[in-house]
Amino acid sequence: MTKLMNPDLQAEILSQALPYIRRFAGATLVIKYGGAAMLDDDLKRAVMRDLALMRFVGINPILVHGGGPEVSEAMRKMGKEPEFIGGLRVTDAETMEIVEMVLTGKTNKGIVSLLNGEGLNAVGLSGKDANLLVAVKETARGDIGFVGRITQVNPGIVHTLTAAGYVPVISSVAIGQDGASYNVNADTAAGELAVALGAKKLILMTDVEGLYRDFNDKSSLISELTAAEARRMVNSGAIDAGMIPKLEACVDSVEDGVERAHIIDGRRPHSLLIEIFTDSGIGTMIHAAQGYRPRLV
Amino acid sequence: MTKLMNPDLQAEILSQALPYIRRFAGATLVIKYGGAAMLDDDLKRAVMRDLALMRFVGINPILVHGGGPEVSEAMRKMGKEPEFIGGLRVTDAETMEIVEMVLTGKTNKGIVSLLNGEGLNAVGLSGKDANLLVAVKETARGDIGFVGRITQVNPGIVHTLTAAGYVPVISSVAIGQDGASYNVNADTAAGELAVALGAKKLILMTDVEGLYRDFNDKSSLISELTAAEARRMVNSGAIDAGMIPKLEACVDSVEDGVERAHIIDGRRPHSLLIEIFTDSGIGTMIHAAQGYRPRLV
Amino acid sequence: MTKLMNPDLQAEILSQALPYIRRFAGATLVIKYGGAAMLDDDLKRAVMRDLALMRFVGINPILVHGGGPEVSEAMRKMGKEPEFIGGLRVTDAETMEIVEMVLTGKTNKGIVSLLNGEGLNAVGLSGKDANLLVAVKETARGDIGFVGRITQVNPGIVHTLTAAGYVPVISSVAIGQDGASYNVNADTAAGELAVALGAKKLILMTDVEGLYRDFNDKSSLISELTAAEARRMVNSGAIDAGMIPKLEACVDSVEDGVERAHIIDGRRPHSLLIEIFTDSGIGTMIHAAQGYRPRLV
Amino acid sequence: MTKLMNPDLQAEILSQALPYIRRFAGATLVIKYGGAAMLDDDLKRAVMRDLALMRFVGINPILVHGGGPEVSEAMRKMGKEPEFIGGLRVTDAETMEIVEMVLTGKTNKGIVSLLNGEGLNAVGLSGKDANLLVAVKETARGDIGFVGRITQVNPGIVHTLTAAGYVPVISSVAIGQDGASYNVNADTAAGELAVALGAKKLILMTDVEGLYRDFNDKSSLISELTAAEARRMVNSGAIDAGMIPKLEACVDSVEDGVERAHIIDGRRPHSLLIEIFTDSGIGTMIHAAQGYRPRLV
Amino acid sequence: MTKLMNPDLQAEILSQALPYIRRFAGATLVIKYGGAAMLDDDLKRAVMRDLALMRFVGINPILVHGGGPEVSEAMRKMGKEPEFIGGLRVTDAETMEIVEMVLTGKTNKGIVSLLNGEGLNAVGLSGKDANLLVAVKETARGDIGFVGRITQVNPGIVHTLTAAGYVPVISSVAIGQDGASYNVNADTAAGELAVALGAKKLILMTDVEGLYRDFNDKSSLISELTAAEARRMVNSGAIDAGMIPKLEACVDSVEDGVERAHIIDGRRPHSLLIEIFTDSGIGTMIHAAQGYRPRLV
Amino acid sequence: MTKLMNPDLQAEILSQALPYIRRFAGATLVIKYGGAAMLDDDLKRAVMRDLALMRFVGINPILVHGGGPEVSEAMRKMGKEPEFIGGLRVTDAETMEIVEMVLTGKTNKGIVSLLNGEGLNAVGLSGKDANLLVAVKETARGDIGFVGRITQVNPGIVHTLTAAGYVPVISSVAIGQDGASYNVNADTAAGELAVALGAKKLILMTDVEGLYRDFNDKSSLISELTAAEARRMVNSGAIDAGMIPKLEACVDSVEDGVERAHIIDGRRPHSLLIEIFTDSGIGTMIHAAQGYRPRLV
Repeated sequence: MTKLMNPDLQAEILSQALPYIRRFAGATLVIKYGGAAMLDDDLKRAVMRDLALMRFVGINPILVHGGGPEVSEAMRKMGKEPEFIGGLRVTDAETMEIVEMVLTGKTNKGIVSLLNGEGLNAVGLSGKDANLLVAVKETARGDIGFVGRITQVNPGIVHTLTAAGYVPVISSVAIGQDGASYNVNADTAAGELAVALGAKKLILMTDVEGLYRDFNDKSSLISELTAAEARRMVNSGAIDAGMIPKLEACVDSVEDGVERAHIIDGRRPHSLLIEIFTDSGIGTMIHAAQGYRPRLV
Repeated sequence: MTKLMNPDLQAEILSQALPYIRRFAGATLVIKYGGAAMLDDDLKRAVMRDLALMRFVGINPILVHGGGPEVSEAMRKMGKEPEFIGGLRVTDAETMEIVEMVLTGKTNKGIVSLLNGEGLNAVGLSGKDANLLVAVKETARGDIGFVGRITQVNPGIVHTLTAAGYVPVISSVAIGQDGASYNVNADTAAGELAVALGAKKLILMTDVEGLYRDFNDKSSLISELTAAEARRMVNSGAIDAGMIPKLEACVDSVEDGVERAHIIDGRRPHSLLIEIFTDSGIGTMIHAAQGYRPRLV
Repeated sequence: MTKLMNPDLQAEILSQALPYIRRFAGATLVIKYGGAAMLDDDLKRAVMRDLALMRFVGINPILVHGGGPEVSEAMRKMGKEPEFIGGLRVTDAETMEIVEMVLTGKTNKGIVSLLNGEGLNAVGLSGKDANLLVAVKETARGDIGFVGRITQVNPGIVHTLTAAGYVPVISSVAIGQDGASYNVNADTAAGELAVALGAKKLILMTDVEGLYRDFNDKSSLISELTAAEARRMVNSGAIDAGMIPKLEACVDSVEDGVERAHIIDGRRPHSLLIEIFTDSGIGTMIHAAQGYRPRLV
Repeated sequence: MTKLMNPDLQAEILSQALPYIRRFAGATLVIKYGGAAMLDDDLKRAVMRDLALMRFVGINPILVHGGGPEVSEAMRKMGKEPEFIGGLRVTDAETMEIVEMVLTGKTNKGIVSLLNGEGLNAVGLSGKDANLLVAVKETARGDIGFVGRITQVNPGIVHTLTAAGYVPVISSVAIGQDGASYNVNADTAAGELAVALGAKKLILMTDVEGLYRDFNDKSSLISELTAAEARRMVNSGAIDAGMIPKLEACVDSVEDGVERAHIIDGRRPHSLLIEIFTDSGIGTMIHAAQGYRPRLV
Repeated sequence: MTKLMNPDLQAEILSQALPYIRRFAGATLVIKYGGAAMLDDDLKRAVMRDLALMRFVGINPILVHGGGPEVSEAMRKMGKEPEFIGGLRVTDAETMEIVEMVLTGKTNKGIVSLLNGEGLNAVGLSGKDANLLVAVKETARGDIGFVGRITQVNPGIVHTLTAAGYVPVISSVAIGQDGASYNVNADTAAGELAVALGAKKLILMTDVEGLYRDFNDKSSLISELTAAEARRMVNSGAIDAGMIPKLEACVDSVEDGVERAHIIDGRRPHSLLIEIFTDSGIGTMIHAAQGYRPRLV
Repeated sequence: MTKLMNPDLQAEILSQALPYIRRFAGATLVIKYGGAAMLDDDLKRAVMRDLALMRFVGINPILVHGGGPEVSEAMRKMGKEPEFIGGLRVTDAETMEIVEMVLTGKTNKGIVSLLNGEGLNAVGLSGKDANLLVAVKETARGDIGFVGRITQVNPGIVHTLTAAGYVPVISSVAIGQDGASYNVNADTAAGELAVALGAKKLILMTDVEGLYRDFNDKSSLISELTAAEARRMVNSGAIDAGMIPKLEACVDSVEDGVERAHIIDGRRPHSLLIEIFTDSGIGTMIHAAQGYRPRLV
C-alpha cells in the first residue's frame, strides 16, 4: 500500500485498536493456517506480519497447518496418484512418508523461516515431537491407511516454548499409539489443541467467506451462531461436505471450553487483524450462548 | 473521529505499525506530561488512551508531571499571589505546602484515575515515596525558597511497580536531604529518571511544535540535532528562556545514555503515537551522534 | 527519656519481649493512625519509631490515616466553613478536592517522610492508586456529597509493596465506581483493609483510653469483649456517637476473620509497643470468642 | 542378549560405572549420529536405549544427524541422480527441497519417535527453528548450490528445551542469511553446536574404527592424539578424504573449548556406553594437551 | 573384583539397567542401614558406593540407622552392662546419653564421611534436629526408661536438604515432647519417615535372607506377600521375635501409602543394587495388593 | 527477674533498641559459645533466649561450640586421663572418638534441643557434614595426634540452612583430607567460619571480662583496639596463654574482612544482648581501623 494516510489519521486508527488489544492481552489463539493464504505469496507475507503484530501486542498465537496441495504435488513427482475417499486422503505407508516429509520438512519450516524473518522466534513441531498429538487409526470410513483420529494431546512442549517466548508452528502429523505416523485433519488438530491449551479463540482460515445458510446463496452468510445451532446444521445435512470437519472442529472446541471459534476468509488480506482488532468481525463466529456478540470491553 | 475507515484499511494501517511496536517492545519511555495536553479535556483523554496503548503493546511508560497552573490557581484561592524569579517559582514554606498538595494530592491522582479508567493499573508517587527523588536547595539564582536540585534518584520503587505491571505516575516533588519537601522542575526530573531507569527515550510534551532555529520564524523548526549541537545552542543564548530547561534536560539525558530525547507538541492529538508508531517523527529529536535518524528496524 | 537504666536491665527487658516478637513474626497489622498521635510532634515521632521497630522485628504494619483537623484548617484558609451532619463531613466537589489534596498531598507524604527518616522504605497510596479502595456514594443520611461507602478492596498493590519490603501508608480517599473521588471514614477503611489483607490485628489509635461501659465513668473501661457483646452495645445506643464507627469497624473486621481488633489510646507514648510487646494489653480488645485473652505463646 | 548373568555380577558391573556416571553428571554431550548406526535397525534401537540411559543418569545428550543415503534414495525416486563434487552434494534448489524434506521431515522425526518410545521427551529441530544454525553459501569449491558454511549458532532454543527436560534432535539444515535453506555438513554442525553449548564432549559416530595412522594398516588405529597432532595430520594429506571433515570438526571444537572429541565406531553395539561408561575408551580421542588420558575421577 | 568382563558385555549389562533407572528417576527411597552391612568394612564400602550410584542416577536415598553393637561396646567400656527386655534396650539416663553419643556422634558421622568420600554431599541428622522425630515414652512393656514411640515426623529439614542436593543420614534418636532424648527403633523410624516423605520404597537391610514361612526351613523364604498377609503372620505368632518390629514397620508403611517395603539381606554385596536395578528381586517384598509384582516398566 | 517494670518503661526501652536492630537486620553473626555460659543452667537458658531474640529480629546467628570439660569427664568415665601439651589436648584415636561423640552427639544436640524449645528451628552440624570444615594434622607443636588445622571451609550447607530459616549449631570437629576426624579449636573454627560466611561480627563468649592490658590488673580492661594493636600484643608475649588462640581468631578474622570481633564475658547474663542491642558495648572489641567505635547508625 502506498502511504496515502497522514500520520494523525494513522495514530487515530491505532488508538481505536486499544480495546481489542486490551481484550486479548495474554490470550492464546490457535490458528489453522491453510488454503489460499498459504499458497499466494502476497497473502502469505501478510499473514506472517499479522502474526508478528499479534505476538508483539501480547497475544500467544499457535499456528497449525496441513498442506494438501503440496503433498499431492510431491506425490505426483514421485509417480503416485493421490486418491481420496469421502474427503480423506487414502494414505498407504509410502504416501504417509511423503505426507510427513512435505508437511514437516517443507511446509512447516517454510512458515518458520518466514515468521523468523518478521522478527519472531518461531519453532516448528510435528505432533510426534514430545508426543504432542497421539492418534489411533481412523476406521469410521473403512481402512484408508494411516489416517488418524487424535486421542490425546500433550501440550507441555507448547507451554515450554510459549513461556520462553517462542511461537510454535505445528504440522498435522500425529504419533500413533503403535509408534507409526498418522495423517490427521489440520482443522481438527487445531480444535483439539485449542481445547488442550485453554485457548480463547480458534480461528480457521479458509477459502470461503464463512458459513452460508444456503450454500448457493452468497448473500446468506451467517455472521454468528451458537454451537447448538451449528450442531443442528451439521446434522441436517445442509452443509457442504468440505465445510463439515471445519464446523465440527469449531463446535467441539466451543463445547469443550474455547470461548469462540471462527471460520474466516483467508483470501482477504489481513483477515486475522480485521477479525481481532476491528469492530467489523468477519466470517462466521461460533460461540456458546445464543445472541451474544459483544465487541467492546 | 467518526469511523469512516473500512476495516481492511484499518487493518493495513495497524499492520504498518509492526516495525515500531517491535522496536520498542520492552523499552522504558519516560514522558514528561504537561501543558495543554494536561489542561484540555479532550487532549487529556487522548493522551491517557495513547499511554494505555503503549503499555498494552509492551512499552513501559513512566509519567512525570508538574502542574504549575493548578498550583497558581490554588495559591490565589488561598490569597497568595504567585511570584517567579528567572522562571522559577518563589517557594516559601506555605507555597511549598500548596505545591505539594496540588501536585501530589490533586494532579497526580487525577492522572492515576484517568489511566485506571483506561484499563491500566496506575500508581501515583511523589519523589518522597521511598526517597525516589532526593534534592538539595537550588541556590544558583539566590534563595528562592524550597526549590530543589536533584542530587540522587532511588529508582527501586519504580522497578518494583513496573515489574508487577503497574504504571508509575510521578509528581515533581523531592525529599530534601534535610527532610523538607522541595519543588523540582518536572522536565529535569523526567530527564534524571530517564537516566536512572536506563530509558530508551525521554519525551517532553510541550506547547510548541519543537525547537526553532529562529524562534520568530515558525518555518525554522529543527527536526533533529545532536546533543553537542543542542548544547551549543543553549550556550549561544539564542534559545527562548522557557525552552532552556527542557533542552538541557534532553541534552543531559542523552549525554548520560538515553538513546533519544524528544520535544513534541502536546497540543496535537495523539502526538505520542505519531512520534512512536509512525514514519513521521514529529517535533525535535536530540540524539548522540550527528546525522543519524533511522526510522525502520 | 534519660538513660537511667543499666544495660543489664535493658537487656533483660528486651529479652522479655521475645514471646511477643515470636508471636507476631510475619504478621500483618493494620493500624489506623489518627488523633493526638498525629498532631503532637513528640507523639508523632514516637509512633514512627514504634512502626520502624515493628517492621524490623518482622511485622508488616500497614498504616491508614484520615486527617480531619488539617482538612478543616485548609478549608478555612480557602474561605470555606466546614459543616458536619451526623459526624460526617458535608463534602461538596470543592471540599472533596481539598480533602484529597490535604490527605494525599500533605498528611500522607508527611508520614511517609517521617517513616523514611527512621530507616524504613515507606510509600504513600490513596485508595485511587491501582483502585485500592472502590466506593459508592453514602446515602444513609441523605445526600451529603462525596462521602463514600467502600464496596471493593483491591489489595494487590499492597501485597506488591510489602513483598518488596516497602511499608504502605494509605489515605482514606476512595475511587468511585463513577470515577469521582470519595471521602471515606478512615477507621472503616482500616477495617476493610484488615479483612482484605488477612491481617492478624486491626488497631485503631484514638484519643480515648478505650471503650467505657459507662461513658461518664472513667473507671468503667472495658479491657476486652467479644464481637457479639460489642455489637449489642452498638445496638443498645449506649455508645458515644463518635465511638460508633470505630466500634463497628472493629466488630465487622473480627466477624470477617481478623483475629483481634483494638481501640487504644494514641495519647500514651509507645501505646503500639505496649499493646503488642508487653504483658499489659491496653485499651479495649474485641475478639471472636468470649473470655479468651492468652498473653503468652 | 540372553540373560546369562547372575544378578550379583550385574550389580557389580553397574557399580563399576559409578566413577563415569559421577564424572558426566550434568554434562552436555553433542553426538553426531550417522552411518550404519542409523541404517541398521538393531543398532538403531541400541543407540536409542544408550541415549535414554545417558539422559536418565544425568547427562544432556544433544543429537545431530544428516542422512545422505535417505536423501539419495528419495532423489532417485523423484528421478534425479545424486551428484557429488569433492565429497559435497551438488545441491540445486530442487535437491535442497528434497534434502530438507528427508532430513527434517523423515529422518529427524523417525529418531524422535524412537527416543520417545524409550521414555524420553525428544523434540526435533532443524537449524531453521529459532535460527539455530545460520549459514552462508559455501564457495570454497565453486558454486555447488545450496551447500552452506555455518556462520552463527543461536543455542537459546536448545537451552530452553534441555532446561525443561527435553532431548533435542537436530537435522543438519541451516537458514541462510538470505532466507534460503542450506545443506550443512552434520559433523561440522555437531562441532559448532558443541562449542556454542559448552559441551564436555563431541562424539562422532562413524563406520570406521577410528583414525588410522596408515589408512591401509588396520593395526595402526590411533587411540588418542592432541588437536595439534591431528591438525598436522590433516595438513599432511595422509588422511582419507572422507575422514577430513570429521577430523576437522574434532580439532576445531577442541581448539574452541570442548574438552574432548571422539571418533567412534557406530557399527559396534553400545559404542556410546563403552566410550562413556567403561574403562575401555574406544575409537580415537582428540584432546587439547598431549599425553593426557585420565580414565578415573 | 578383577575386571574379567569385556567392555561390550559391560555396556550391555548397563543398558539392561535402563528400565529400572527410568522407573526410579526422582523417587525417594528410605533405607534402614544396619547389621553386617554396617559392621563389615568391605560391605560397608560397597553400600556407600551403591548409595552414590543411586543418587547419581536420580534417586533420593534417605539413610536411617541405629547402631546397637557399638552402643553396647561403648557401655561396656564405661562399665555398664547392657540389658534388654523384650528386645528393647533398658535405657536409663546415663545409657541414653551413651546411645545418643554413639549413634549421633560416632556412627552417623562415620557414615557421612564415607558417603562424602564417594563424591556425595551427605549431612547427618538426629531426630532432634529441627524436631525431625518427636516421641513419647514407650510404656507398652513397662517402664524401661528413655525408649520412645514416634508421635510426629517433621520432614521439612529433609526436604530442604534433598532439594539442595544433600543426602540426609538420620540416627534413630528422637526428641521427647518433654524435651528429653529418646531411643527409638531404627526400623520403625525408617518406616515413619518413608510415610512422611511419600517414599516409593522402604528398604530394611538385615542379616537374614528375608522372611521365612517357617523360620527353621531356609527353603521357605517368602519372596513377596501383601500387607494383609504379613499382618496375619505377625498376629499368628509364627514370626521370630527379632523380625516382628521389621515386619511391622513394613506393613505400617505400606498401609500408609508407601508402594513397597523390602526386607533384604545386607550381608550380600550390592544387595541394594540387585533389588533396585535387576530383574532378580531379592529378599521379601511387602506390597498393598495381592499377587502383584511387575518388574518392567 | 520479677516484673517490676511498668509497661511504659518497658516500651521505651524496647524503642531504644531500634537503632541496633536496624543496624543488624539481615547480618550474619558467628558466635563461639563456651565456658560458664555452657555449663551453668541459668546462663545457658538465657543464652538460648538471647539467640532466639536475635533470630526473630532478623539476625542470622551461627553457633560454634567446643566442649572441653564434657570431653574430659567422658574420658575419665572410660578410664582415660586427659593430657594437654601447650593448651592442646593430646588426641590419640580413642580420644578423638570420645571427643567426636561428646561434642557432636551430646553437646551439640543438647544445644539444638534447647534452641528448638525457644521456638527456633536449630540443626546441628559437625565439620564433617557436607565437608564443612576440612583440616590437616596440626604439627606445630609436634605430633599430638588428631588435632587439626583448618585448611578449607565449605559453607554451602550453612547457606542452605539459613536461607531456609534454620539456625546452624556447629561442633568443632573437622574432616581430614585423609578421611580421619580432627579436633579443631572452636575459637579458630568460629573465626574461619565468620570469614567464609562474610559475617559482620565474630563474638567469642569467654569466662573473662575481656582482654586486659595487664592480666593482673582487673582495672586494665581494654574496651577496644585495632587488629594491628592486638597483633602486637600477641607477639609481645604479654598475653595470657589461654587468651592467645582467642585473640588470634579475632585478629585473623578482622584482617580477612569481618567488621568486628568481640571477646565478651559469658558469665554475665544476656551478655550477647548487651553487646548487640545496647549503647554499652561490653568486653573487648577488635576492629580494622584505629579509634573507631560508632554506636549509633
